[in-house]
Amino acid sequence: MKIYLDNGATTKAADEVVRAMLPYFKKYYGNASSLHDFGVKAKEALENSRKIMARELNAEPKEIVFTSGGSESDNLAIKGVVYANKNKGNHIITTKIEHPAVLAAFRELFLEGFKVTYLDVDKKGFINLDDLKKAITQDTILVSVIHGNNEIGTLQDIEQIGKICKEKKVYFHTDAVQSFTKEKIDVKKMNIDLLSASSHKIHGPKGVGFLYIRKGINIRKLISGGKHENNTRAGTENIPGIVGFAKAVQLDKKLNQIKKLRDYMINKIETEIKDVKLNGDRTKRLVNNVNISFKYVEGEGLLMYLNDKGIAVSTGSACSSQSLEPSHVLTAIGLKHEDAHGSIRFTLSKYNTKKEVDYTIRGLKKIVSNLRKMSPWKKGTKFDHKGVYYHEH
Amino acid sequence: MKIYLDNGATTKAADEVVRAMLPYFKKYYGNASSLHDFGVKAKEALENSRKIMARELNAEPKEIVFTSGGSESDNLAIKGVVYANKNKGNHIITTKIEHPAVLAAFRELFLEGFKVTYLDVDKKGFINLDDLKKAITQDTILVSVIHGNNEIGTLQDIEQIGKICKEKKVYFHTDAVQSFTKEKIDVKKMNIDLLSASSHKIHGPKGVGFLYIRKGINIRKLISGGKHENNTRAGTENIPGIVGFAKAVQLDKKLNQIKKLRDYMINKIETEIKDVKLNGDRTKRLVNNVNISFKYVEGEGLLMYLNDKGIAVSTGSACSSQSLEPSHVLTAIGLKHEDAHGSIRFTLSKYNTKKEVDYTIRGLKKIVSNLRKMSPWKKGTKFDHKGVYYHEH
Repeated sequence: MKIYLDNGATTKAADEVVRAMLPYFKKYYGNASSLHDFGVKAKEALENSRKIMARELNAEPKEIVFTSGGSESDNLAIKGVVYANKNKGNHIITTKIEHPAVLAAFRELFLEGFKVTYLDVDKKGFINLDDLKKAITQDTILVSVIHGNNEIGTLQDIEQIGKICKEKKVYFHTDAVQSFTKEKIDVKKMNIDLLSASSHKIHGPKGVGFLYIRKGINIRKLISGGKHENNTRAGTENIPGIVGFAKAVQLDKKLNQIKKLRDYMINKIETEIKDVKLNGDRTKRLVNNVNISFKYVEGEGLLMYLNDKGIAVSTGSACSSQSLEPSHVLTAIGLKHEDAHGSIRFTLSKYNTKKEVDYTIRGLKKIVSNLRKMSPWKKGTKFDHKGVYYHEH
Repeated sequence: MKIYLDNGATTKAADEVVRAMLPYFKKYYGNASSLHDFGVKAKEALENSRKIMARELNAEPKEIVFTSGGSESDNLAIKGVVYANKNKGNHIITTKIEHPAVLAAFRELFLEGFKVTYLDVDKKGFINLDDLKKAITQDTILVSVIHGNNEIGTLQDIEQIGKICKEKKVYFHTDAVQSFTKEKIDVKKMNIDLLSASSHKIHGPKGVGFLYIRKGINIRKLISGGKHENNTRAGTENIPGIVGFAKAVQLDKKLNQIKKLRDYMINKIETEIKDVKLNGDRTKRLVNNVNISFKYVEGEGLLMYLNDKGIAVSTGSACSSQSLEPSHVLTAIGLKHEDAHGSIRFTLSKYNTKKEVDYTIRGLKKIVSNLRKMSPWKKGTKFDHKGVYYHEH
């Protein structure tokens, strides 16, 4: 039995998506910049896909720039807008719970001399809107706030954030890689200036994403060369990938089914396993996210034993899975080292079933119980400031 | 009948390539950074593909950084190395016949204050090695010279260029997007420090490429975030795309067959159509490139009439096909405006046949003849300095 509960890391490409891509590999394989029929066919597919993305966000097609994925979109949005709008000031704002691509782009800008404000979040992972208002100054160029957090699933109130940014006349970027198509997003109504999205989180192919850029916003290219993508991102367009992404957007999302399964899973874990804690908010969270701290166990051990049973989950985000540091998101919501280390993220998809969740929880119960028996730490174990446990004698 | 002779713009994905990709869409769809079995499978495929690329160049696997394609590779190589090695100087060197991605990256650096030398080329499109030697100063950081030119097919002597750069202790980048797997490249023997390659030019999928970066070279990321790709390029790796690219590298290239067809085509056009001129060198050229100036005709008209017969060709490179400017490459080799405008690039693949070439030349003969009859310009027509024709009375 193979149970994939790591859909926040990446998803299976839907069969319909792969079927939609195939003709563009084999038959309509032209370069969208070519003037002959092969090129025209490719261009049509490209522009049709762009319309599908625009419709999903209530944007205009020319406001959609296809990229290689979420990380590129985040980098293009942040570095692109800041470099092109240096004359506006030297201050930028983000949060402590962003995706590594956003944090790294901000870090680069900080090292180049820009002032950065990192907004705190509360225990559920929400920023404080008053903090945001106070942080914005005459020198602020850009505010970047993640929509649905990739680790704990918390959904920020991007409509209110957009309103504040509009009032204060600063650009608002949101990393919507996890929330795109899972939450209703209207860039006009929500005053979003830039939005990052990725295909492989929604059963589309890997290697494709887009950045929505409100028309009229100056942006500096990250990848220069030809005049592709409204002269904002050079490179032969990945037509099969883009067509697959567009198909993924059009498929039935079964959001209610996923949400029911999420709540069933949270409830069942809380009922059947002792000393657990849900991270993030109970309702304002991504429909597919279940993030739980299991006290007195190491997340990595739990992950490995679940893997032995054919169950794929993650500790924190895949992007930082190679690191031994506790997750910056879990730290930001105030988790202690030991609780952060015992956290597991389960991320569901429409392909998961109640039976799979039941099987997973049965496995979890046994593994958590065994790990706790073996664990040198238990209630009363103390941890030093580095998270290393010790027993008081 | 559909005849695709625009393989320099992009190629059909080989059936073997698509077959190799499918399991990574449907079954082994994990994120290569994930720690569970799905992730391990993806990681294995990634590292196996990296080895295949490295072997092809006599490089080491960790010297291969997968990207979204040639334009990204060029930008990462040039901006990445220059920004990370600013302390070495403020001078960079390239040629007048580079791909737009290279030229645009140099242009950006120029606008930021770097000094740029653009090397001239001769009538065949070769740079002069003495010019290169003289151009390199104490302040030079990087030399970037395209290997196989994308328009006229001219192959530079990258081994000699590498030798000069090594002696003068400057970094050498080559855009090998058109030549990769078509010409033998040994990065050690040829002293190449950075090399750009792309999948979709060799029957692999679009949206994938790599940059070879000699170990020990400092480079600044273009796309920051996670520590993917030896901490040089963030973003979830496009495993199906990378696997497809690796498969494309391993397929039989049938280079001799393509070369024979190229020479057959050149010879037949020169024999059967009057007032034509081969652009580029007759032998030191990409195995699949046929670039011809047809005097007294407009290339775009020729392209459109060929398209009506189901034949796909290009005028110049696809990346600049939307522009009305004459090709910078054809201008650099000294073509007059009117000859540049009458140039067509035919680029062959192993799927093309002698029959297709014969059909194309029969069509060409008729179309060229008709266009010349209709054309307001003929032998004796003069052109002003802007390329506008006039008749002397």
